[in-house]
Amino acid sequence: MSDSLEWLYQPIQPLNAQCHAEAQAYQNQLTKPPGSLGRLEQLGALFAAAQGQLKPVLKKVSIRVFAADHGVAEEGVSAFPQEVTVEMVRNFSRGGAAITVLARQLGADFKVVNVGTLTELESLPQVEDARIAAGTANFCRQPAMSPAQLEAALACGRRAAEQAADQGVQLFIGGEMGIANTTAATALAAALLEQPARSLVGPGTGVDSAGIDRKTTAIDRALALHQAKLDSPLATLQHLGGLEIAALCGAYLGCARRGLPVLVDGFITTSAALVASRINPQLRPWLLFSHNSAEPGHRLMQQAMDAEPLLDLGMRLGEGSGAAVCVPLLQSACRLQSEMATFAEAAVSENIC
Amino acid sequence: MSDSLEWLYQPIQPLNAQCHAEAQAYQNQLTKPPGSLGRLEQLGALFAAAQGQLKPVLKKVSIRVFAADHGVAEEGVSAFPQEVTVEMVRNFSRGGAAITVLARQLGADFKVVNVGTLTELESLPQVEDARIAAGTANFCRQPAMSPAQLEAALACGRRAAEQAADQGVQLFIGGEMGIANTTAATALAAALLEQPARSLVGPGTGVDSAGIDRKTTAIDRALALHQAKLDSPLATLQHLGGLEIAALCGAYLGCARRGLPVLVDGFITTSAALVASRINPQLRPWLLFSHNSAEPGHRLMQQAMDAEPLLDLGMRLGEGSGAAVCVPLLQSACRLQSEMATFAEAAVSENIC
Repeated sequence: MSDSLEWLYQPIQPLNAQCHAEAQAYQNQLTKPPGSLGRLEQLGALFAAAQGQLKPVLKKVSIRVFAADHGVAEEGVSAFPQEVTVEMVRNFSRGGAAITVLARQLGADFKVVNVGTLTELESLPQVEDARIAAGTANFCRQPAMSPAQLEAALACGRRAAEQAADQGVQLFIGGEMGIANTTAATALAAALLEQPARSLVGPGTGVDSAGIDRKTTAIDRALALHQAKLDSPLATLQHLGGLEIAALCGAYLGCARRGLPVLVDGFITTSAALVASRINPQLRPWLLFSHNSAEPGHRLMQQAMDAEPLLDLGMRLGEGSGAAVCVPLLQSACRLQSEMATFAEAAVSENIC
Repeated sequence: MSDSLEWLYQPIQPLNAQCHAEAQAYQNQLTKPPGSLGRLEQLGALFAAAQGQLKPVLKKVSIRVFAADHGVAEEGVSAFPQEVTVEMVRNFSRGGAAITVLARQLGADFKVVNVGTLTELESLPQVEDARIAAGTANFCRQPAMSPAQLEAALACGRRAAEQAADQGVQLFIGGEMGIANTTAATALAAALLEQPARSLVGPGTGVDSAGIDRKTTAIDRALALHQAKLDSPLATLQHLGGLEIAALCGAYLGCARRGLPVLVDGFITTSAALVASRINPQLRPWLLFSHNSAEPGHRLMQQAMDAEPLLDLGMRLGEGSGAAVCVPLLQSACRLQSEMATFAEAAVSENIC
């Protein structure tokens, strides 16, 4: 292992257990029947534990969309042509994409990080050029990334996390854009969960049944080709992943190292969360899961991480959009924990049975 | 029927069907795979239809918490003493309750409408004194309300709706506060759905199993006592309802008459929505349902209205809190519908299969 990958395995601080217990007890003093705010009470206590303070604050949110292309696109696995990756980066830059609309709604800090589009992009507002390669190689024929490319992508994600932590961000959302990346994410899930590709493959952005067959075949070929090399989560990521998925892994681990909670989005980002939590299981308490994607393999990955997503709205867009729509719920949870009066403060009688 | 109740039955305008169809078609031109925003696409189209414009706006939200006491509290059906109703009204006024925290988060227009607390309340900021009676009568012994009280409560709710519509509000949320009001709501549900009380009664704010037995007994007694009189939704409301529940019915019908969508909260408000949509079924398209309450009878009432709530967070507080946490999702839906670029505008390639 390269020395510069050691950071991935270094210990990550747990959530503050004492603060978590105090926050849970405090919830029962607030002017409501105990437990009546359901999941919001758990989330309030979790942010209290993450921030080490009884009254957590959730105002500064950072959204980073990592964009990259995928060599496996040439197998005909996507409903959209590969040019859409760069076209959508331009759409992000101009604020016309779903995630940019939602970022404006949240007042969130938003940026695209280009870690590897097939073609070079002109300089664009809100787009950081961190292009490592012209997309991944087609993993049906060779490893998706070289070890050096993997390392660079992980480091790129880590940098984004460090910058967010340095700026006092209280929640990090990673998004992704990359035509064919459900195929890479599904391959990662199949390898790590030891499930047949067929049980995990879905329509992604909307391929038909022939497209689903092509995805399944591509993943089966890749798993057979690289089988002997998939002996660690990191090696699996290198052979089957994507530059943006590796960057997300680096970002998630980087956030947890700095005590910054992460809100995981949909199918692709969940595959990154799965890889990252296999690399370093101490990541897990720092991950929040936003929603159930309509993509079939999503639930299996979430189950493998004991994830309990908050929303189930049939979304399957990616970009970080499912996470973004979830943020106000987390903000409600923090505000309720922080701003509600206690029974004593409000002179409200407590329950009698 | 009193002349002054005729408004309840007058025709309500449907949603704008042409605008709804145009909005759905427009969703498929936006830069995302068709359908990939799931429920948010449906909500965006629904607000377009409600507002009669392709690009809906959801900025002005009105929250009205109707507060009243319930004679049936003397049967020992609540986990909290009856004083809590007025104590919580004071807590709302000072901003320490869950719904007031959430109203601040939303920047929503918030007011409590006191339609019938047991004791008179001093003048309080953000509390409107519209007290019709010192709570309802105990429906185990006599009708909960007189016809005149019912009419006044319905009119009070209607006034709140009219004020909201006059102020250009785009979404109305009704909340409620009233110790023992899950018992009244459950009695209404049992009568209207023709279900045994036992199958609908739940812990409300947290009664134990003996309390659940007392609730069930109280409802069974009331249903037996008033059986012959429960020959219309309005008569059922008069005999088994509450002043705040009647006000909510009036508010919901008043909103729909003015083309103002309503976001229904939890168990109590859903019982009001059920009564109101039985009074005038043309109300139904104007109702949005926010969440699944943990109270067992909630799902049955929702099913009776083909309601598909958006959230399932184990909340069971009432006050309008479940609806309030849902508002940002509706705002996301409207913004996405209104602000996303089309494929043509953004020069993004469309799908190829």
